[in-house]
Amino acid sequence: MANRVAVYRKEHFNAAHRLHNPSLPQDENQRLFGKCNLPNYHGHNYELILKVTGEIDPRTGYVVDTKILSNLVNEHVISKFDHRNLNLDVPEFSNLNPTAENIAIVIFNILRPLLSEQLDLQIRLYETPRNFVEYPTS
Amino acid sequence: MANRVAVYRKEHFNAAHRLHNPSLPQDENQRLFGKCNLPNYHGHNYELILKVTGEIDPRTGYVVDTKILSNLVNEHVISKFDHRNLNLDVPEFSNLNPTAENIAIVIFNILRPLLSEQLDLQIRLYETPRNFVEYPTS
Amino acid sequence: MANRVAVYRKEHFNAAHRLHNPSLPQDENQRLFGKCNLPNYHGHNYELILKVTGEIDPRTGYVVDTKILSNLVNEHVISKFDHRNLNLDVPEFSNLNPTAENIAIVIFNILRPLLSEQLDLQIRLYETPRNFVEYPTS
Amino acid sequence: MANRVAVYRKEHFNAAHRLHNPSLPQDENQRLFGKCNLPNYHGHNYELILKVTGEIDPRTGYVVDTKILSNLVNEHVISKFDHRNLNLDVPEFSNLNPTAENIAIVIFNILRPLLSEQLDLQIRLYETPRNFVEYPTS
Amino acid sequence: MANRVAVYRKEHFNAAHRLHNPSLPQDENQRLFGKCNLPNYHGHNYELILKVTGEIDPRTGYVVDTKILSNLVNEHVISKFDHRNLNLDVPEFSNLNPTAENIAIVIFNILRPLLSEQLDLQIRLYETPRNFVEYPTS
Amino acid sequence: MANRVAVYRKEHFNAAHRLHNPSLPQDENQRLFGKCNLPNYHGHNYELILKVTGEIDPRTGYVVDTKILSNLVNEHVISKFDHRNLNLDVPEFSNLNPTAENIAIVIFNILRPLLSEQLDLQIRLYETPRNFVEYPTS
Repeated sequence: MANRVAVYRKEHFNAAHRLHNPSLPQDENQRLFGKCNLPNYHGHNYELILKVTGEIDPRTGYVVDTKILSNLVNEHVISKFDHRNLNLDVPEFSNLNPTAENIAIVIFNILRPLLSEQLDLQIRLYETPRNFVEYPTS
Repeated sequence: MANRVAVYRKEHFNAAHRLHNPSLPQDENQRLFGKCNLPNYHGHNYELILKVTGEIDPRTGYVVDTKILSNLVNEHVISKFDHRNLNLDVPEFSNLNPTAENIAIVIFNILRPLLSEQLDLQIRLYETPRNFVEYPTS
Repeated sequence: MANRVAVYRKEHFNAAHRLHNPSLPQDENQRLFGKCNLPNYHGHNYELILKVTGEIDPRTGYVVDTKILSNLVNEHVISKFDHRNLNLDVPEFSNLNPTAENIAIVIFNILRPLLSEQLDLQIRLYETPRNFVEYPTS
Repeated sequence: MANRVAVYRKEHFNAAHRLHNPSLPQDENQRLFGKCNLPNYHGHNYELILKVTGEIDPRTGYVVDTKILSNLVNEHVISKFDHRNLNLDVPEFSNLNPTAENIAIVIFNILRPLLSEQLDLQIRLYETPRNFVEYPTS
Repeated sequence: MANRVAVYRKEHFNAAHRLHNPSLPQDENQRLFGKCNLPNYHGHNYELILKVTGEIDPRTGYVVDTKILSNLVNEHVISKFDHRNLNLDVPEFSNLNPTAENIAIVIFNILRPLLSEQLDLQIRLYETPRNFVEYPTS
Repeated sequence: MANRVAVYRKEHFNAAHRLHNPSLPQDENQRLFGKCNLPNYHGHNYELILKVTGEIDPRTGYVVDTKILSNLVNEHVISKFDHRNLNLDVPEFSNLNPTAENIAIVIFNILRPLLSEQLDLQIRLYETPRNFVEYPTS
């Protein structure tokens, strides 16, 4: 494992969302999520960082070509999330509260099967410059 | 005018919006605004920078106390825009397309009457780190 | 452990300090700490990032509410450190050199007992954008 | 004036200060400056940006060599302000409240005589990423 | 002029260059440009910010569509400068030293004729986060 | 291991490079590396972050003095890489493709023997703000 290198690629998307658990009464949603629960949505410039860890291919000097990685995440994630309403437009959140934690797991679950099993994947998602999450984590 | 100093204060708010001119047909809206016109809204982490220019008060060494400036913009702008849908929740945009340009002018028009006439005010608004506007400008 | 997520929250405080070990002679302090040992203090805009790792609560979609986390760190750390002199005003440093390393450990020791045992805590502290530390670390 | 170009150079220094006007009673200082008036000082990572405007020298393609500009500001400003207490260690503030506004003017007055009269100089000083000033300004 | 708004759009390109004036002897080049004159080139991540100032179009709420602006700069500037050697690959610099000042003027001269005369254009170019230029400037 | 702290130090260098594997035919190089393979080089502002992990020295409160760390990396890495062409001027890349992955490993191999065995070292290298790597990694 001595020569494993992590490669990071940063992307972004702009989306609307609100935090809401439809299985809870509205006053409990209001108590739990405060202004994040307001009915007409708000939004964020999400910054998404993929971390892909593996061994260097001696032919290329790459663990993974960040251009290919960028194309992959744009085709399978950004094109579906960018300029959308996560609650209304992205099927994965029709029954899942779009917290940063859950968005990160959804993105991981989309991308994980598309990468070689010899590569590890970790997602970091910035909802704002001050609030961000990482998945998976040890 | 030799001792005029500009004081900047940065604030932020998170909001949803869509670009749409209701007086135009929908296909023209789609052509003009592309994915920014999608019906269910998207959103941004807006960064707002106030520039207030004036002479230094010799008692304080301040042109303006940035704490007071921050309170002013939080009371009159941030509390109304943050975690809201600009199109639906902010009356100023009920008939005005919430482009960055128009949002900057609306914020200027809210704050200008609240500041001393001896102070100049300029608004810079970042919709994303790559798209931003400034008003007024010479 | 499959669904553990790390949640990060960024806060800041501005403080004065100097590096000085009172148990060493002054010329040794000067040799070890250089201009950081100057007698009248200097200061920094400290950026503090909390990393809290745990399982997602299925009711909320949160590992931890960053609002609650922010309130906690403001009440127990920021209110005591911000706009203070770490050497003179913060009892933890009356006999402890306020290096970034030691400040991070002090903050960890304040916050650790206030969080659920099921959550892991890590502190990252930026003294400047170019010098920063992390504790604990494996 | 068609070919005038502005050249910017960014430097930084770390310093302690407190806001205090010794000609005012202490309760007035406390009211005006709040926690910035606390007696034992606090501090900042100041970011300083010089803007030097002039015509391009056709031999070099430079308005001014940023290396020379950096040396100049390091010799005459940074070496005197960095890791110091502005109130106690910098003679210019022995009778001048070290607000960001006043620090910017002091730096301008130090550097202005050291630059060719054919060059314009403007100072931008960041006390924090959210509070900054500019001098002179029209 | 009351309703003029400035719209900013940020782009980037990565390029190699060296500073060299072929009409001067080599020892003078070495003296003037130091390590920037080394023969085998070095390089930068250039950040380019366009500022376009004009009146808001009441139909769109835009001064200029930043998407159109981005396409324009990508077609006419980025595609020619990105991943190139400015001295060897960009004809404008075959007899012009590629200082940040000169690169900014070259970009301005490419884009100015492509924009409506009712719009003002200003270029800001970051060679590094600490060295940047602006053209034209008053 | 309870009191291990990681200390980070950020440095930077500007260099030219191209991606090219001389043991492969040119059309394969072109296919693999695209515009990064263009013959006349391009370049980057590389940001380099050292992470050094160890126990705090109770005399100093430091794991490692970041000033000493900075001097070390400047003497052994920055002075050799900065303002150079990695392919032509840095012997380590005469037979090694200067991808970010390989540059990080080269820097690690230079610095590792210069640090105490009781300290762990990790390299993070930013080729651009959106593409970066880390070595070693678990």
